[in-house]
Amino acid sequence: MAMGIYPYFRALSDSEGVTATFEGKDVVMLGSNNYLGLTTDPRVRKASEEALHRFGTSVTGSRFLNGTLELHLELERRLAKFVGKEAALVFSTGYQANLGAISAIAGKGDIIILDKDAHASIVDGVMLSRGEMKRFKHNDLEDLERVLSKSPEEAGKLVIVDGVYSMGGDIAPLPEIAEICKRHGARLMVDDAHGVGVTGQGRGTMAHFGLTDEIDLMMGTFSKSFASIGGFVAGSADIIHFIQHHARSLIFSAALPAPNAAAVLAALDIIETEPDHVARVWKNADYMREHLKELGYNTGNSNTPIIPVIIGEKYKTALTWRALIEAGVYTNPVIPPATPPNGSLLRTSYTATQTQDHLDRALAAFKKVGVDLDLIPTADPA
Amino acid sequence: MAMGIYPYFRALSDSEGVTATFEGKDVVMLGSNNYLGLTTDPRVRKASEEALHRFGTSVTGSRFLNGTLELHLELERRLAKFVGKEAALVFSTGYQANLGAISAIAGKGDIIILDKDAHASIVDGVMLSRGEMKRFKHNDLEDLERVLSKSPEEAGKLVIVDGVYSMGGDIAPLPEIAEICKRHGARLMVDDAHGVGVTGQGRGTMAHFGLTDEIDLMMGTFSKSFASIGGFVAGSADIIHFIQHHARSLIFSAALPAPNAAAVLAALDIIETEPDHVARVWKNADYMREHLKELGYNTGNSNTPIIPVIIGEKYKTALTWRALIEAGVYTNPVIPPATPPNGSLLRTSYTATQTQDHLDRALAAFKKVGVDLDLIPTADPA
Repeated sequence: MAMGIYPYFRALSDSEGVTATFEGKDVVMLGSNNYLGLTTDPRVRKASEEALHRFGTSVTGSRFLNGTLELHLELERRLAKFVGKEAALVFSTGYQANLGAISAIAGKGDIIILDKDAHASIVDGVMLSRGEMKRFKHNDLEDLERVLSKSPEEAGKLVIVDGVYSMGGDIAPLPEIAEICKRHGARLMVDDAHGVGVTGQGRGTMAHFGLTDEIDLMMGTFSKSFASIGGFVAGSADIIHFIQHHARSLIFSAALPAPNAAAVLAALDIIETEPDHVARVWKNADYMREHLKELGYNTGNSNTPIIPVIIGEKYKTALTWRALIEAGVYTNPVIPPATPPNGSLLRTSYTATQTQDHLDRALAAFKKVGVDLDLIPTADPA
Repeated sequence: MAMGIYPYFRALSDSEGVTATFEGKDVVMLGSNNYLGLTTDPRVRKASEEALHRFGTSVTGSRFLNGTLELHLELERRLAKFVGKEAALVFSTGYQANLGAISAIAGKGDIIILDKDAHASIVDGVMLSRGEMKRFKHNDLEDLERVLSKSPEEAGKLVIVDGVYSMGGDIAPLPEIAEICKRHGARLMVDDAHGVGVTGQGRGTMAHFGLTDEIDLMMGTFSKSFASIGGFVAGSADIIHFIQHHARSLIFSAALPAPNAAAVLAALDIIETEPDHVARVWKNADYMREHLKELGYNTGNSNTPIIPVIIGEKYKTALTWRALIEAGVYTNPVIPPATPPNGSLLRTSYTATQTQDHLDRALAAFKKVGVDLDLIPTADPA
């Protein structure tokens, strides 16, 4: 991409959560997935530091062999309880959680039906499985019904959706999806990477809809609200036991180091006992959505702390991204094929620890850049 | 597996490197991949701790978007220089390094030829690619020659081998393999997960053979000698640039947290300036191999710090594993399909920080258990 505006793989020299240093410039950070702001919480850091001193920086082995610590088992018990399922299984990344779980459970002859916007790690999980992949239009219940109706009745069927979509910031209509799945004898899995910690008082999108018992398998990550790295799946004891013994990305990969696991446990403590963090990320996002719309921006169907600002044309989006950096705001530009043609957008996302001042600085930058680049109507001078 | 001897997914309550606590019992640890013992080195811990305080516990984003820190770029420069290649690319796990790199570079019509014992993450990488997989017998040059000869001349060909095999502890005959690849116009990739930090004065198996320029792509992990988690690939600037923009496991996964990256940088400092660590792991392994053989054990073709003790029958192997635990030694049992039928083994691996006392305690346990279970000849009573 020309004109020094290629926006990918750029380095942040520092990352303090709500602000960052980008190419020497202080920017308000609207581009992290640190929804609860816990990556810099002193209690999370302390827990991680203590585990570092007790266990060292690595476990140097697979969970299958020498890499299972009591700490991993404790984390699994806590996660299962937190999301309301019998059992949970921790992987070293969220990508590997989807890859391992899906490729383990989807067998020959099974049909796996994905929302068109489902995360890449879900697609890769199906590609690694022996099952057949089908897609339905994003959040389109009629299209899901159509795809299920055309699938052989005797085939095993698994529907996989995101709880909260990572780019659009919209929530899946799980009650309707669960009803359709039940009617067609399909299992339902929810990737709640961007939901857990945020929706359902932090317990995720299953809890948000009161549907915990209707969903067969949920997946979550630690690299967002949980202030770490890694991921997990949660479900019945039987399904988790099966995945544990068949997921190649679990068995053939080193386990999560203790400091990373301990950070998640500390984040769970905070989320369970201090509901204010979840409340604040919603308050910040609602404020920004309201005012971005008021300025004249198109925020799509967002109703979560992820708010896309849809610009349309690809180069205009990159120019807007650059101008926002100059104005002191970091966003993430997203262009086709990750969006529809001419649906390029700046992904903004919000954090519990942003202050009113951070948000108002960001809005002022959006106003200035929007007017300068003719993206929004000029304010009435009167 | 009956009789309370099911050996997998057992938890260690503590992990201090050379010893551990397993089900309440103190054991000498012969089951880690902590070859240089750096997971508990105070300098590695301190670097990790400082990064924790400066950057927090997570970067909460993909390398592609908000997840690239200057620290990642520094680590990539250092790794490239260390192994002698133009460029390197860091992934959040070693599994994802193989998965992403191989699926990115192997296109439709390409033939990817793997050693039969190549790591599972290599197999999964090929499965995710659009290329066709072929196998050759482990370390068998004639068979490699045969497979290459049968492949269409016009097809892109990529041969992938491990530098050091994780179960057998044997080194790939890279000079001969490189010569065969050159003759057939095939590219060569080496997974050096168990080599880097150990072979070639720590610089890996390419360096061990003086073949750095002959090998197109190398892969390494951080969860072994480098005392962390994550992985990397290294090669020409062009190939690394291509992988960076096409590896889905890089683009669609959160970046390595700063404390984990900082641990690798500290480990690199130590390996580059203190050759003694590498020398000591070899000394310990050579001592053990010599004395295990002297006791009458079969250590296969091992010539690295990974020494398999081949028992044969599966249940006998599990019983031996259990008896060794009771005698105070932790090993990793490996059974079919990870070994040939009737080739079940106890994988032992060694660490620079083991003392003579640890090694002699382990040998005494091997002697006692071997005699008790009729695995080795009884010593002459005279």
